[in-house]
Amino acid sequence: MQKATRQHTKEHNRNLVLKTIIEHDQISRAEIARRTSLTRTTVSDIVADLLGAELVNEVGVGSSLVGKSPILLSLAEDSRYLVGLNLAYNRFSGAIVNLRGKIREIVSLPVSVQDHEKSLAVVYKILDQLVKAAFQPLVGIGIGTPGLVDTRDGVVVSAVNLDWENFPLARLLRERYNLPVYVLNDSQAAAIGEYTYGTDHKDDHNLVVINIQHGIGSGIIINGQLFQGDGGSAGEIGHMIVVPEGGSLCRCGNYGCLETVASAQAIINRYKMEVYQSGELRYSNLPDAFNLELIEKQFNSGDPLARKVILEAGRYLGLVISNLVGSLNIHKIVIVGIMRPFGKPWLEAVCESVLRSSLSKPAQDTVIEIGQLDGNGIILGASAILANDYSLLFNT
Amino acid sequence: MQKATRQHTKEHNRNLVLKTIIEHDQISRAEIARRTSLTRTTVSDIVADLLGAELVNEVGVGSSLVGKSPILLSLAEDSRYLVGLNLAYNRFSGAIVNLRGKIREIVSLPVSVQDHEKSLAVVYKILDQLVKAAFQPLVGIGIGTPGLVDTRDGVVVSAVNLDWENFPLARLLRERYNLPVYVLNDSQAAAIGEYTYGTDHKDDHNLVVINIQHGIGSGIIINGQLFQGDGGSAGEIGHMIVVPEGGSLCRCGNYGCLETVASAQAIINRYKMEVYQSGELRYSNLPDAFNLELIEKQFNSGDPLARKVILEAGRYLGLVISNLVGSLNIHKIVIVGIMRPFGKPWLEAVCESVLRSSLSKPAQDTVIEIGQLDGNGIILGASAILANDYSLLFNT
Repeated sequence: MQKATRQHTKEHNRNLVLKTIIEHDQISRAEIARRTSLTRTTVSDIVADLLGAELVNEVGVGSSLVGKSPILLSLAEDSRYLVGLNLAYNRFSGAIVNLRGKIREIVSLPVSVQDHEKSLAVVYKILDQLVKAAFQPLVGIGIGTPGLVDTRDGVVVSAVNLDWENFPLARLLRERYNLPVYVLNDSQAAAIGEYTYGTDHKDDHNLVVINIQHGIGSGIIINGQLFQGDGGSAGEIGHMIVVPEGGSLCRCGNYGCLETVASAQAIINRYKMEVYQSGELRYSNLPDAFNLELIEKQFNSGDPLARKVILEAGRYLGLVISNLVGSLNIHKIVIVGIMRPFGKPWLEAVCESVLRSSLSKPAQDTVIEIGQLDGNGIILGASAILANDYSLLFNT
Repeated sequence: MQKATRQHTKEHNRNLVLKTIIEHDQISRAEIARRTSLTRTTVSDIVADLLGAELVNEVGVGSSLVGKSPILLSLAEDSRYLVGLNLAYNRFSGAIVNLRGKIREIVSLPVSVQDHEKSLAVVYKILDQLVKAAFQPLVGIGIGTPGLVDTRDGVVVSAVNLDWENFPLARLLRERYNLPVYVLNDSQAAAIGEYTYGTDHKDDHNLVVINIQHGIGSGIIINGQLFQGDGGSAGEIGHMIVVPEGGSLCRCGNYGCLETVASAQAIINRYKMEVYQSGELRYSNLPDAFNLELIEKQFNSGDPLARKVILEAGRYLGLVISNLVGSLNIHKIVIVGIMRPFGKPWLEAVCESVLRSSLSKPAQDTVIEIGQLDGNGIILGASAILANDYSLLFNT
């Protein structure tokens, strides 16, 4: 609890008005006053400030049954730009994003070598391009990266695939670009992206977003805010043990983690093994290098082995989700990432497994769905964390 | 976000001053101003209100290097009383608690029959006694009950051992006693009790409290507030599945839940079976009816079977805690309830299991300890939730 001063009240009310404008396509001052319970005078004063800061535009005239027609206000969505980065397993992407989450420019480069200097060089290359791309003014840079992140200090504590350990990413980028920099775990970024720009979550105060990629993680939104835990790694579900006896070795050093049975690599390995063991002729003309696209094709053409492997991965994921249902009792869970193409049959296996391994009431009350944002959810989330900090917008 | 008015600011600052006084044994107005950053005048005005409401006393004179010595203020801890209830498995307890969590009167009655009317009659009997016990004024009644609770409506959704289903407990008690009533899950109450009155948690914003009784549950404190999830059942860890293959049937209908291997009843059953199967002569003079006290005696005297059963229960609990470490990354976990007598050896088995089945960094950063509150933690927590609602204190 901090003291409330007139300054706090003023800021609070300014943010409240801005939030109300953002939540609407177009809205009049009178309607803002009605929705916020602020006086018309207070609203008018704040709107004048927002117009002055060019964060809001007057966009037209609404209709009114009595008196003169009100002027409508709208967020000036291109008045500020954000940079969002996704440092994915084998490809880094960065984008210029506007205040409504619309991507204005995107740059994407492959990363192949696990070498921390080379990884950083690719980050620089992408950011150099974006920062020079004439979208101004820039609010800051938000980054989603796999691995364990100390968000407060902007340090990547450990990210195996980037060969980064206690790597002061935020400081380096701040020095180079002279912009605010925010670094967070990629699954946490995906959660913010989904919560801010995904399928209608306006009425959800809490949300779990599960992100299945090369690894598996999740981000937890509690009371509208990302919950990171005391050490920043809340949502690290990829290393929950789902095969307690005889599970495979995980890159974390334990055996039987969720990642060993439900991540992209695990699914590919598993399918390869099943095909090999089956010895069936019909698999003889499959290419040597298996990838997820191949399994997707096989799955859609009704291959029983592909079906078996994919649904089993779904059932293991369901076990972990049932742990989340038990501990968090959050009613909406969105799954994003590489499993999207396997759609309904896979999701049904997940849900069935959740129902079978949870208390029935909390499980029945939980909706599990596949996220509708395309692959840019992490970029959008990384940028949204800056856009949601209104004080940054005013200082840009 | 709600609009901030002068009224909100006033209430906020009043609560801030009261909180500061509560956090100190004795404190001067000048020190309050220093700690809250409020002006001396604002603090003096608020303190005058608090003195007027008799929530605070002037208790003496402090020392000062310069100028006149300041008058010290202290919470009038017996100016209001709270009623806390714990509807435990086979015994209901209720107490009059003061504003510092000191129990002034306690009533405890056995409950034997699973009959919802008889259960309610025992609740009435305890409350009648407490309400008549001349401790005035009463702020309200807080209740911790096993089972699933709809806290907002004060409805016990399902509590098997009380034979209550969709039972409007809060409404019934409100009508009978004309006091505010707050009903919540017993493990959630235990978490509030531990957070408010337990071993120094002043610096912890987040806390997990695991409550092992007839059943097993937990309460999660996030940013200083109980987190109940969307359906009120956050923390329901007793039905996480820890024996996925061949586990025993749980009262929830699933197999292999934590409660089937680590609750009081599970431990007693398991020990009984081990003793029976061993066929060893040395167990021949054990009484017919096993209970936890017996196992404790055996454990302390070095009985290998008792040791095996208890440590195994600890290891299973560790598996569930490692799930919480992964998903929540909360650095302090306190265990309360019936396992306290098994102390250090049991706790070591728990911790070892957590370390073995979690990512190493989050696990190493987590402190797991046995709660130091005695058996009244649930009563204290149930009452504290009222004491923490300052507006209730002012309206009493």
